[in-house]
Amino acid sequence: MKPTRSALTHQPDCLFCKINQGEESSVTVYEDDICKAFMDIFPLGEGHVLVIPKGHAERLEQLEQATQGHLFKIANYIIEAQREAGFGNDGTNLLVNDGKAANQTIPHAHIHLIPRKKGDLFTSAWRIALHISGFFGFKTRQSILEEQAAAIRCSLHITGKAA
Amino acid sequence: MKPTRSALTHQPDCLFCKINQGEESSVTVYEDDICKAFMDIFPLGEGHVLVIPKGHAERLEQLEQATQGHLFKIANYIIEAQREAGFGNDGTNLLVNDGKAANQTIPHAHIHLIPRKKGDLFTSAWRIALHISGFFGFKTRQSILEEQAAAIRCSLHITGKAA
Repeated sequence: MKPTRSALTHQPDCLFCKINQGEESSVTVYEDDICKAFMDIFPLGEGHVLVIPKGHAERLEQLEQATQGHLFKIANYIIEAQREAGFGNDGTNLLVNDGKAANQTIPHAHIHLIPRKKGDLFTSAWRIALHISGFFGFKTRQSILEEQAAAIRCSLHITGKAA
Repeated sequence: MKPTRSALTHQPDCLFCKINQGEESSVTVYEDDICKAFMDIFPLGEGHVLVIPKGHAERLEQLEQATQGHLFKIANYIIEAQREAGFGNDGTNLLVNDGKAANQTIPHAHIHLIPRKKGDLFTSAWRIALHISGFFGFKTRQSILEEQAAAIRCSLHITGKAA
């Protein structure tokens, strides 16, 4: 079943809905009718991307099955593109924090794609750890995020996936 | 596209292949032709389940798209069943550690479904943190895992999903 755009709802106070609507800026990596992928401004690793559905849903499980499937499909394309662009050659943490106790900080379903590299124990690993415990991370300069996004977008284009 | 069983390969030295083949024991929550879900014997939260493909693949991205989709579909059914059974009412961490730097400890693709509850900062959150950094966790008694699995299996049956 192809995911549909039907019944895409938006919450006026939701940061990610605002990003989807273009009311808040973001550094976009990929976008289609169903989902959007953009750079996390509080990255837990170099090249950290978030994938979100266009319609508002607090938890991933509240989305239609086909929409969930599409999100994970695009997430996998992006992981591949992150590696192609030189991020996460040594691994990736795909993380979903579903619900408040899991420290979902923004109540709009999202998938974290966090590139990892050897020896990042005291940078990425512990940032992820702190994030799971409620820590946001350190804000990264827009120009750096733009550069990283350009490299990932280019790799997505080269692989021909999610084009 | 329906995932197929074709070309299911097994690695003789892989712990999860042995579990799939029945050569190593596990406390099963769910099983079909494509995947198996069982209790993590080093749980990072009460009711922690692992979902693995039947065929051997080191990384999730190496699996066919349809197989990946199936794994995430079943993972979502199980998250729902975990909640129904009283685990993760306050949230769930869905975690994939893909590759060595992401501290994938067993080189057979797997999805962690870690139920969270309020105030588990010094139990679950930090166990997850340590796990991402290479820590296994504390082994839990078989009888406790059996009880938890029975409750989750029962909930899967009640929701009528993944039956």
